[in-house]
Amino acid sequence: MRVKVGADFTVTSPRETPAVFMIRPETRGAHMTLAERWDSDPGVPYHEYPDIYGNVCRRMTLPAGSFSLRYVALVEADGDLDPYDPSAIEHPIAELPDEALVYTLPSRYCLSDMLFPQAMERFGGLAPGWNRVQAICDFVHDHVTFGYGTSTPSTTALDVYESGNGVCRDYAHLAISFCRALNIPARYSFGYMPDIDVPPPYAPMDFCAWFEVYLSGRWWIFDARNNVRRRARVTIARGRDALDVAMLTTYGATTLDEMVVYADQTDERVRAFA
Amino acid sequence: MRVKVGADFTVTSPRETPAVFMIRPETRGAHMTLAERWDSDPGVPYHEYPDIYGNVCRRMTLPAGSFSLRYVALVEADGDLDPYDPSAIEHPIAELPDEALVYTLPSRYCLSDMLFPQAMERFGGLAPGWNRVQAICDFVHDHVTFGYGTSTPSTTALDVYESGNGVCRDYAHLAISFCRALNIPARYSFGYMPDIDVPPPYAPMDFCAWFEVYLSGRWWIFDARNNVRRRARVTIARGRDALDVAMLTTYGATTLDEMVVYADQTDERVRAFA
Amino acid sequence: MRVKVGADFTVTSPRETPAVFMIRPETRGAHMTLAERWDSDPGVPYHEYPDIYGNVCRRMTLPAGSFSLRYVALVEADGDLDPYDPSAIEHPIAELPDEALVYTLPSRYCLSDMLFPQAMERFGGLAPGWNRVQAICDFVHDHVTFGYGTSTPSTTALDVYESGNGVCRDYAHLAISFCRALNIPARYSFGYMPDIDVPPPYAPMDFCAWFEVYLSGRWWIFDARNNVRRRARVTIARGRDALDVAMLTTYGATTLDEMVVYADQTDERVRAFA
Amino acid sequence: MRVKVGADFTVTSPRETPAVFMIRPETRGAHMTLAERWDSDPGVPYHEYPDIYGNVCRRMTLPAGSFSLRYVALVEADGDLDPYDPSAIEHPIAELPDEALVYTLPSRYCLSDMLFPQAMERFGGLAPGWNRVQAICDFVHDHVTFGYGTSTPSTTALDVYESGNGVCRDYAHLAISFCRALNIPARYSFGYMPDIDVPPPYAPMDFCAWFEVYLSGRWWIFDARNNVRRRARVTIARGRDALDVAMLTTYGATTLDEMVVYADQTDERVRAFA
Repeated sequence: MRVKVGADFTVTSPRETPAVFMIRPETRGAHMTLAERWDSDPGVPYHEYPDIYGNVCRRMTLPAGSFSLRYVALVEADGDLDPYDPSAIEHPIAELPDEALVYTLPSRYCLSDMLFPQAMERFGGLAPGWNRVQAICDFVHDHVTFGYGTSTPSTTALDVYESGNGVCRDYAHLAISFCRALNIPARYSFGYMPDIDVPPPYAPMDFCAWFEVYLSGRWWIFDARNNVRRRARVTIARGRDALDVAMLTTYGATTLDEMVVYADQTDERVRAFA
Repeated sequence: MRVKVGADFTVTSPRETPAVFMIRPETRGAHMTLAERWDSDPGVPYHEYPDIYGNVCRRMTLPAGSFSLRYVALVEADGDLDPYDPSAIEHPIAELPDEALVYTLPSRYCLSDMLFPQAMERFGGLAPGWNRVQAICDFVHDHVTFGYGTSTPSTTALDVYESGNGVCRDYAHLAISFCRALNIPARYSFGYMPDIDVPPPYAPMDFCAWFEVYLSGRWWIFDARNNVRRRARVTIARGRDALDVAMLTTYGATTLDEMVVYADQTDERVRAFA
Repeated sequence: MRVKVGADFTVTSPRETPAVFMIRPETRGAHMTLAERWDSDPGVPYHEYPDIYGNVCRRMTLPAGSFSLRYVALVEADGDLDPYDPSAIEHPIAELPDEALVYTLPSRYCLSDMLFPQAMERFGGLAPGWNRVQAICDFVHDHVTFGYGTSTPSTTALDVYESGNGVCRDYAHLAISFCRALNIPARYSFGYMPDIDVPPPYAPMDFCAWFEVYLSGRWWIFDARNNVRRRARVTIARGRDALDVAMLTTYGATTLDEMVVYADQTDERVRAFA
Repeated sequence: MRVKVGADFTVTSPRETPAVFMIRPETRGAHMTLAERWDSDPGVPYHEYPDIYGNVCRRMTLPAGSFSLRYVALVEADGDLDPYDPSAIEHPIAELPDEALVYTLPSRYCLSDMLFPQAMERFGGLAPGWNRVQAICDFVHDHVTFGYGTSTPSTTALDVYESGNGVCRDYAHLAISFCRALNIPARYSFGYMPDIDVPPPYAPMDFCAWFEVYLSGRWWIFDARNNVRRRARVTIARGRDALDVAMLTTYGATTLDEMVVYADQTDERVRAFA
């Protein structure tokens, strides 16, 4: 399924401001890229580096004043629904691959240690496996009311549990915390997600957060916010939580004047796109 | 300076318990190893893997019942005092190496975002550079009273700031948090530290935590707990905070029956040691 | 110095042909990128991965029939001449960083073991350091006559030494082999190189190969082909030799119908370029 | 199956000689380690680092004069015969994982490009898959006559093909070259191999070389030298060929006075061993 993804946005900075973007689709994912383009006004030099999780980070210094950036890519995404296997099992810790262990530990926003009692009480008695993770998603989906502006950069999963409010990242943080409290490896993920098979009315497109869980020897996508299987997710990055995996990290105050995110199924051919 | 490092310890586990040890001196550090030996009773198979920071982790499953482990190494450590350069400068974010950026962000225990106001109030007006980091150490050293049992696995730097109590890891967490709040990269470190030039009485030897700060293009050791320059530290691992960098992580309850840590200057030659 | 780099090319393949491109400027180099664009006709999905040296590889399957690819980037390159320090020293092996050791060993094309006698005879008696490496470049520059078509994919440095013919990769291979025979770490590099300060007539622009040598704690560019310091080289990749570091590796026969390489100083601003 | 592996050896060096050892069983392999011990006379400081393939390298400077090293480990190895699946398939290049691609290319000793005609003539007409790889092993096993001293550090697979003589590394190099010429990923491997189920008389134990081939989504061990399935191989390292993967690489001439290699099934318990 061909999808056009990307974002146009404009920020204003009072002074030169170091910044790190995660905006390119991951380079080795379920999708493949056909064409891509990055430009900005004014032109600003950048370089790329991999972070500790292997995500591609694009680093630059935003100029003082107004800065516009446009990134767009044409990708071939997986048009099937998110993979699904209710028979998938939880592994005992001793059988997990080394790389999964870090995703059993608490992190800045995913306070699985503080939420251990709640996790045990609500989900400790359920049979291990896919359906337990789904039960976590069901609970989080119902427990949290979506609302822009209900959370801040310091809102943890514990806060979300207590307030019952949040945006997509908060749904993910709370569900991840419950999983980790039960020794199920869970990691935060975000990217582009087209509105396919979704009934109107449509909200303005935005970056979306979901999470991944390690069951039966692989990582599976779960999405406590939408709590339905979707098509054509285009992952940008994944890691422990939204602190490490952010579309834009700036060192200094900037004002986001405008942002338009693209994640649209398309019939565009490459030359037309270019 | 030749130093014998290691630990003997015995744990009792009610059932088979997955565990990860960080106990070997780091493999590419200021010290070099001459000989090493690892054995246990009962014998338990293990393997090694590098974590996301490159630390060597030794993973195994502790048997049910009593388990004794002995690790000992003979190392050639740096006999000089910790490097010191009061003229070392803070770098603007834009000039930091990519690898240092992750150490400017908050982490589970180092809540630099929550401690931002306190950091700015106390240290924001000081001239950037080595002396500002030293001022942070001085404050933390004076503000926190050392006491075993005053902190728990969920104690954050904010808790330590408010309670004024902690152990060596808590001193490090609070100082790291202040540094990061000021955009100075800081990372947690722990290892073996012999009591050289230290007046008696001696406490029982233990693993020790300190931290490292990025100034003038390199990482420097700071130690808010002791707040003096020491000799022959033998680093085991480093990372964002004590959550990721722990001598022993177990998945399940175990009882530590006995632990003897070695970090002693020695004249042993290798064959005698073996 | 602003430079526009890239390539347009067209290949014809009798059947679907797996291919790996190295065509993007390295992501963490002396230059920084301002804008870039990749498209093809027909559109072909690709993904990126890092090879064992950390180079960015772009992997895809070329379709049967004609395929056109256009890659172009606007970069801010270093406008100074290649760094130069005739006082730079060779390190004893024991002082080399671990990462440099692999570049002291022979490789498929750089038969430093076979060329050891020649290296010792010609350069073994010279004082170690920058000037010895320069003497190697001077010899290779004079010994080899440039000629397209004089070497094949199986031509080794030994062949080049014996025939006295080659293209830029062959100059690099021979010089690298002499360096390694003397225990001086040397690695192959290639990329874009604008014709700045170069008197006409100009050859058609092509990808260029040079090499890097480890002296005085860092890597330095040397260029036995041109044997003059140049400006604004934009490195794409580096590794042991041209086998591992190739603009295009195909698994199957393809015909290169046309290739135009860009490496031009420019006044273009980003929006105009895009 | 419990196996004791390691080596005692003594070298004499006319002067201080930089050296890199690969002697520890790989840290994440089919075996697990229970205990290990390293010491030397005189004591010599070393550090460890991972090479470009992830192998653990132990680096030091051998002293002038006589130097003795003893390394011994007790490991739990896989007591089953080498895995075997004659239905395993070759993957088309487009379906190989990125990491396997480097093992399709020629390397210093494995001249798959030069041996392409022979590979095509002998094996190009066979059905792809396990049995084709086995046919390569059968040919190499019969074609090469084992003999210590028949090959040198510059002997390539082409030389082995032509001379028909070699040691275990040469068998591996030739078989690897044929595989790569057919676009089958193949990599060199070496380690300890006990004489289990092997009829006497026994040769003195030595390090052994074999190779691995990527079929049906995983790597499989093949052994053209012995050409039988074995038990309890304990891999030390793997890479492109014996140049990169050597028990000992020295920078300067040393004399090997004595070497005793251990690879013995044992009933030793850990404490007795220690």
